[in-house]
Amino acid sequence: MAAETSDAEAQAGPDEEAPGSTKTVTLVFQPTGRRFQVPEGEVLFEAATEAGVEVDTVCGGNGSCGKCKVRFDDDPPAATPLDYIHLSGGEIDQGYRLSCQVKATHDMVVHVPESGDSAKVQILHQGVERAIDLQPNVRKMFMPYVNPREVENIADWDRVTMRWPRTLRPRDVPLRVLRELPAAIRNKAGMTVVTASRRAIAFESGDTTLRQFGVAFDIGSTTVVGFLMDLATGTEAAVASAVNKQAVYGDDIIGRLSRAQRNPEGLAKLNAMILEQLNAILADLAGQAGIDVSDIYEVTVVGNMAMHHFLLCLDSTYLGLAPYAPVTRAHVATTSEAIGLKLDPDVPVYVLANIAGFVGSDTVGVMLATDISGGNDLRMAIDVGTNGEMVLGNRKRLIACSAPAGPALEGARIKMGMRAAPGAIDHVWIDDDVRYSVIGDSAPKGICGSALIDIVAQFLDAGLLNHAGAYIRHAELDASVPKSLRERLIEGEKRRDTYFILARAEEADGEHDIVFTQQDVREMQLAKGAIRAGTMMLLQEMGLEDGDLEEVMLAGAFGNFIDSTNARRCGLTPQLPVERITSVGNAAGVGAKIALVNVTQRRRSERMAAQTEHIQLSGSPEFQKAFTVAMQFPKS
Amino acid sequence: MAAETSDAEAQAGPDEEAPGSTKTVTLVFQPTGRRFQVPEGEVLFEAATEAGVEVDTVCGGNGSCGKCKVRFDDDPPAATPLDYIHLSGGEIDQGYRLSCQVKATHDMVVHVPESGDSAKVQILHQGVERAIDLQPNVRKMFMPYVNPREVENIADWDRVTMRWPRTLRPRDVPLRVLRELPAAIRNKAGMTVVTASRRAIAFESGDTTLRQFGVAFDIGSTTVVGFLMDLATGTEAAVASAVNKQAVYGDDIIGRLSRAQRNPEGLAKLNAMILEQLNAILADLAGQAGIDVSDIYEVTVVGNMAMHHFLLCLDSTYLGLAPYAPVTRAHVATTSEAIGLKLDPDVPVYVLANIAGFVGSDTVGVMLATDISGGNDLRMAIDVGTNGEMVLGNRKRLIACSAPAGPALEGARIKMGMRAAPGAIDHVWIDDDVRYSVIGDSAPKGICGSALIDIVAQFLDAGLLNHAGAYIRHAELDASVPKSLRERLIEGEKRRDTYFILARAEEADGEHDIVFTQQDVREMQLAKGAIRAGTMMLLQEMGLEDGDLEEVMLAGAFGNFIDSTNARRCGLTPQLPVERITSVGNAAGVGAKIALVNVTQRRRSERMAAQTEHIQLSGSPEFQKAFTVAMQFPKS
Repeated sequence: MAAETSDAEAQAGPDEEAPGSTKTVTLVFQPTGRRFQVPEGEVLFEAATEAGVEVDTVCGGNGSCGKCKVRFDDDPPAATPLDYIHLSGGEIDQGYRLSCQVKATHDMVVHVPESGDSAKVQILHQGVERAIDLQPNVRKMFMPYVNPREVENIADWDRVTMRWPRTLRPRDVPLRVLRELPAAIRNKAGMTVVTASRRAIAFESGDTTLRQFGVAFDIGSTTVVGFLMDLATGTEAAVASAVNKQAVYGDDIIGRLSRAQRNPEGLAKLNAMILEQLNAILADLAGQAGIDVSDIYEVTVVGNMAMHHFLLCLDSTYLGLAPYAPVTRAHVATTSEAIGLKLDPDVPVYVLANIAGFVGSDTVGVMLATDISGGNDLRMAIDVGTNGEMVLGNRKRLIACSAPAGPALEGARIKMGMRAAPGAIDHVWIDDDVRYSVIGDSAPKGICGSALIDIVAQFLDAGLLNHAGAYIRHAELDASVPKSLRERLIEGEKRRDTYFILARAEEADGEHDIVFTQQDVREMQLAKGAIRAGTMMLLQEMGLEDGDLEEVMLAGAFGNFIDSTNARRCGLTPQLPVERITSVGNAAGVGAKIALVNVTQRRRSERMAAQTEHIQLSGSPEFQKAFTVAMQFPKS
Repeated sequence: MAAETSDAEAQAGPDEEAPGSTKTVTLVFQPTGRRFQVPEGEVLFEAATEAGVEVDTVCGGNGSCGKCKVRFDDDPPAATPLDYIHLSGGEIDQGYRLSCQVKATHDMVVHVPESGDSAKVQILHQGVERAIDLQPNVRKMFMPYVNPREVENIADWDRVTMRWPRTLRPRDVPLRVLRELPAAIRNKAGMTVVTASRRAIAFESGDTTLRQFGVAFDIGSTTVVGFLMDLATGTEAAVASAVNKQAVYGDDIIGRLSRAQRNPEGLAKLNAMILEQLNAILADLAGQAGIDVSDIYEVTVVGNMAMHHFLLCLDSTYLGLAPYAPVTRAHVATTSEAIGLKLDPDVPVYVLANIAGFVGSDTVGVMLATDISGGNDLRMAIDVGTNGEMVLGNRKRLIACSAPAGPALEGARIKMGMRAAPGAIDHVWIDDDVRYSVIGDSAPKGICGSALIDIVAQFLDAGLLNHAGAYIRHAELDASVPKSLRERLIEGEKRRDTYFILARAEEADGEHDIVFTQQDVREMQLAKGAIRAGTMMLLQEMGLEDGDLEEVMLAGAFGNFIDSTNARRCGLTPQLPVERITSVGNAAGVGAKIALVNVTQRRRSERMAAQTEHIQLSGSPEFQKAFTVAMQFPKS
């Protein structure tokens, strides 16, 4: 009920009431300077919205989104509990308040930030960007000190809960945290209440609302990555990664599963190894960002089903035997103490839901990151890893499968393979000679996954490899193959001893050439064959052909972004126009980050996981047939 | 849609379909023998209800109450998950099924148990009886063994959850319990799933559905009682009690609070003492009933606010200082591990909600047991203990207060006082001489609380005490006082040395007379004065007089039931016609039992606690004034 007033009217003064009407006050909205008369007591957000002044909102003014902040330069109203939850201490000092919490009790000049100023998290800084609202599970609220002797006979816990809006009010508190409350609430510096899932998990001295971090883990069979997210701002504060040490028990999942099978000590060992790595990454992340690990309040995790079992120390025996039953495929909401992370014991750990079989929460992470269920377009996401997982579908139907690709595309089982770390050749171009880029712009030390795809695709185009994956003998090379390439192709006595010199020793460490062997081609062929066969099975299940796909998204923690043209050329992907093949980087990790910063997306991931159908490939004769076909390279 | 059929029709045979109608089947309900034609596939419960056959129900047929069981003598339908939840293994073997889960697929003869046959828990076997539906928080379901290799690729946890009806389906499982699942679900003996609050807390070998116990604790300042309840049947399996060992730090609450005040070691010591006692009682209860402590799946606790803090190891410093703020007054749902009970670590421990100040969950227990908020009648419950707590109200308004009565009415601070154990004089009658009853019918060893009230009331009537509480000197005794009583009244040199011989040494242990001293009268007077003053304050708050009360209910763990006439005579209660004064025994403990066997009542207790207003007496000049008045005995 806001009525825009002319300047003349406004100048008549707000104290002059229109006869017969309720008392009104004047609101001036900056930067436009528009003026409105509104009934006294009207909620500012409502008044602005009705007057057509655009104030950001997600929740529509019920106090849960924190988007509708406005600034008062003079005499800001008292900050409410919701202000403390949604705004930083600095913003409150600057006069920012949530407009849905302010009543127009007197004439006010209100600065409305431009729409979009409020924090959206650019969650994928590489690859596909997706703006996610900052809506973390962890909440903090500062409670200024009040002498308890001056308050009524109110239980300490009631003083905590009464300050929160109903929808965010903590409902529960672990006993050991509750035991800290009497001292904390009487701390002269005030106290910050930390909640997660509406459970109070800490009472901290002073105002710590700006110190609020979470970690998203992507546990791959080969690579483990941790992302430190600033939950107060939604920005990424640090990244750390490491090779999964479990690889000593097998570089693929099967070897590790058999290690753990009916062998509690094997499982305990695998569990201890991953925990040790996660704890090291936590310390590394905190060190990089200059924070304390006690500033980390929540952890989310994605990983395939085997990593999930090893992390949670769940007996994986039956996961490794037909019919491949996991212990659970539901999301697991537990604590750092229960799981064994070196954080405060009540820090919540949220392991995303799995789909079925070996298709784990990493795939759910990819689905979240690519928003694959967001529309009607039929899209496919392929997570290229030691196990390749594929999802196909749209908002109506989703199907997924996994195929044992082996670790080649993560750099393992490749003679000069390495993971995507400084020194890794990550992209290769071939024209008259070989050109390549190196991560960190240093001298090359080895080859990572994204380069493998470039190499094979371009060797095929250059006439160095035939479509069965064999190096062509010098004698049979086409005349068009330039001399510089011929000189790099070193023929062995046996065909399998043939190799190609990508970088000569003098460009590298001075001692060893960086080579790509016939065996390396075979390894790459097995990996891409398994993945391609999986995609064929999914398309067949839905009765589709390659061309029916609107988009194929390539994801993986296997290094830098895959070159789409090369991925198509070597037959890793369905054969589509190249503009419909995109590379989305470590989408599983992005999914873990999204679940960390936004609880609505987290809930959505649970539904997606439950709704996705799983196609069991292991033991399927159709898959074996498809695999044989898919091992070949396309003829062009 | 059931249509009763005549015998003639029925004899025409169920296979003959009425032309143009859907297929019907014949149901015969025993013991009445009534027959009905109903459409094939109709739910039995619906059919019976529509036909006017009374089948017990609470939930109206949605499968959550388990009341609608019927028996099939021949060919009972396959038991459903709900049958396993609500019926015992024996009942299932006898052919009992829940009628809301059975479809009339063919002609059936159905035995309907008489209404009321189904288990109601007679929760107060002494005092006021209250029938409570058996609706425990702990649920068990037996899952017969299925070879997992013969089932599809279904996660173990999904196989567990899918068997439960939606409203009871477990939503959560602690990680360490989940770790037991793969082995348990492959146990050839089958597995029993135990849930509490829709959390799976154990997977047990074989069918253990009949082994299901819970313990309700009433932690009084002076006496600790544990009740072992059979949650499969709702019956009480054992009781054990002990003197609260914390009494070494003070027989009232104030002494113990000051011990704990700003002294973490004092609190830790008080906490350790009560835990040790509770653990001893748990072992005692299990021993008495011949069960294992691992058959105990849930614990409920009531106690006053100080006992609550000591049990939960919450800093009670500020509870002991104005404005007497407790750490929390909410119910606490925790686990045996978090609290320190020697049960399986995930056994839930539910500590009932408190009201405020010192009015704790024991009072909420009394409210639950007496159903004080159930109607419009204004009723008052008085829990006579070391702290006396009083509640006044009805379904519209409830107010409560606590008064420091001291432990006299529990037998402490009385020269020959003892708690209500074998050998305690629990009732006394005076006519020409003294008569008494002794708990256990043995020789008397001392006097317990209920006898104190008898003694003082009857001494007043017999002219042995004046209304100020002084023994009348021999010289001033009325001529009507019989010689036998005069001989028992032994005058000391000083008035305070006067005492009365209740039982001579030869009736007792042969060495000591059992006496009641002038000092004992004073102690009793302080106790009843505090309580009476509390009741006066509550009545004043509501603007009521004694006569406005429909009922005054006396509760307490202080021995046997109080004689209402005597309680009124000595001024412990408001002055009402004696038929409106009732004695309800250990109602706090009964409340703990009700919360254990019925979750709906448990939720109700939370609302009652939150809604009850608290009147702070400590430091109130009005209370001091009332106390002075209330110390006196009524003149008649």
